[in-house]
Amino acid sequence: MSNWLDAVKWDEDGLIPAIAQDHKTGRILMMAWMNREALALTAEENRAIYYSRSRKKLWRKGEESGHVQHLHELRLDCDADVIVMQVEQVGGIACHTGRESCFYRVWKDGEWVTTDPVLKDPKEIY
Amino acid sequence: MSNWLDAVKWDEDGLIPAIAQDHKTGRILMMAWMNREALALTAEENRAIYYSRSRKKLWRKGEESGHVQHLHELRLDCDADVIVMQVEQVGGIACHTGRESCFYRVWKDGEWVTTDPVLKDPKEIY
Repeated sequence: MSNWLDAVKWDEDGLIPAIAQDHKTGRILMMAWMNREALALTAEENRAIYYSRSRKKLWRKGEESGHVQHLHELRLDCDADVIVMQVEQVGGIACHTGRESCFYRVWKDGEWVTTDPVLKDPKEIY
Repeated sequence: MSNWLDAVKWDEDGLIPAIAQDHKTGRILMMAWMNREALALTAEENRAIYYSRSRKKLWRKGEESGHVQHLHELRLDCDADVIVMQVEQVGGIACHTGRESCFYRVWKDGEWVTTDPVLKDPKEIY
């Protein structure tokens, strides 16, 4: 395996958080996790491939929904324990709720207020 | 304690990842962790307050460096297990290396290449 994968500081579960940011708008779309294989494949296939902690297997973003994230840039932080990806979000929807971004709730006066619209009914996506 | 803190899905260590994004440029500055107290104080004091996993205590970002992060917006994701903050980065430096962002290394042909300049010598910061 490559040196660049050894440079990553994997956590005790062998994972690293990966943030996906829209390469054009700068909108933060989601954060998920990658294991070594997922990160290697992300670089190899130029698309975001995560590791699903709940399903305990690789998660090729878009495999069901078609909402693939094409990779434009991959960055590592100073502590080598967080990844940022610049991506092109196919379909303009990253969230399983049918919204552009998973971060659709804003804190206001002590409550989480949903501010972003559902762009597509999840039933039509999955 | 407030309901909005109960809505957060804390991990087994009682933490949640918090991403700081420059509210003007959209640049992702850093990702660190918060515990319940840190998140409560972040909202109360309108500045980013993290929990340092290495030092095992609250980390009032900027307490030593002066590089405080003023809070403009706080968001929660669909799974309630990641936070995004829009912040105003005092001094224009978020990273302890003296760079604007902690994500200063870009993947290129199988290597992490440092692309961003050091804006201020860390010895002058700390």
